[in-house]
Amino acid sequence: MDGKGISKAVITRLPRYYRYLGELLENGVERISSNDLSKQMKVTASQIRQDLNNFGGFGQQGYGYNVRFLYNEIGRILGLDHVHSMIIIGAGHLGQALANYVKFEKRGFKIIGIFDINPNLKGSMVRGIGIQMLDELPKFLEEYTVEIATLTIPKDSAREVAELLVANGIKAIWNFAHIDLNLVLPSDIIVENVHLSESLMRLSYNLTHAENKQKKM
Amino acid sequence: MDGKGISKAVITRLPRYYRYLGELLENGVERISSNDLSKQMKVTASQIRQDLNNFGGFGQQGYGYNVRFLYNEIGRILGLDHVHSMIIIGAGHLGQALANYVKFEKRGFKIIGIFDINPNLKGSMVRGIGIQMLDELPKFLEEYTVEIATLTIPKDSAREVAELLVANGIKAIWNFAHIDLNLVLPSDIIVENVHLSESLMRLSYNLTHAENKQKKM
Repeated sequence: MDGKGISKAVITRLPRYYRYLGELLENGVERISSNDLSKQMKVTASQIRQDLNNFGGFGQQGYGYNVRFLYNEIGRILGLDHVHSMIIIGAGHLGQALANYVKFEKRGFKIIGIFDINPNLKGSMVRGIGIQMLDELPKFLEEYTVEIATLTIPKDSAREVAELLVANGIKAIWNFAHIDLNLVLPSDIIVENVHLSESLMRLSYNLTHAENKQKKM
Repeated sequence: MDGKGISKAVITRLPRYYRYLGELLENGVERISSNDLSKQMKVTASQIRQDLNNFGGFGQQGYGYNVRFLYNEIGRILGLDHVHSMIIIGAGHLGQALANYVKFEKRGFKIIGIFDINPNLKGSMVRGIGIQMLDELPKFLEEYTVEIATLTIPKDSAREVAELLVANGIKAIWNFAHIDLNLVLPSDIIVENVHLSESLMRLSYNLTHAENKQKKM
């Protein structure tokens, strides 16, 4: 159940299982069959069984899954059973939006520092955390253990800042800059890219081609 | 070249091609072989040729791709050759962050309205657009043509608001609420979900299992 050698596709689906199981728990559901879970999530029951078998199963033939047990186990597999310390680099609108999103902290992602290069922001408070200047970052990383750095800065400076972070011991980057940092950083650095423009372009693609289809009818 | 019947995986990759080609253009590169593009994007050359063949090729054996032509064609396929009008529902931090992101407008996504339910926000300006109250939305949608609605509101009200949007003619939703709106809306409504928590959980998974690996060494 330690999640070694699990395919990227399964890992991509795990947080979704976690979300649905959390909702079932909120609604007081204690047990669910793969068939019922399948109907809610609109994936096949065999897909669910196959995905969860990667982690040793959890299901009991004919009894379905124990929702709380499965929720907790998937949480553990996702690393949500302990607190991850996080900093945000870039205190613009997006950085502040993420800093203000309380649900991340509930899941164990604790923001302990926010950095920017704009001197006008120095000392401004975001949810009780004072914005510091980027040149204070190396000293901060010496003093505090930080697991994850969130990058909400423009693309042009992203690589340089990411390299500074890595040089100061950061192992994981949640990257909102429009550059594939995973391709330019050492391979042991974990990068999760969120490219919002690309998401919007996929929407535009689907919209455009749906419109074309309708016009042809 | 009209992009019919193209697999979801290819569509997911198109915006990335578009981004890399845009960067090549910025750097004055006029022509590139699939091998060179492959090295930059870290995908195989055969993958690139295969993906682009879906749209009729573009490459000339031995001459590589004309960067500007390919960039423009992919832009056209993605529907970026005309302006998409957009509204934002939810003027919290994330909604305002998206409204302030000027690059979206450069790509043709024009925000023409911002809505919220918080009366304290009524009339506040975000990049020259006054925040309106949600009950003004139906009238607004009668007056203006809106293609895309961006939902940056809590999960609990997302479904209801999405149904209101659909009832008033919206065909595409860019959804940041933590719910799979595609599963609850009519199938002809285009939904692109951005689930930031799930992205963070994938990062946590990779971080946790990388740490375990190191501990075992």
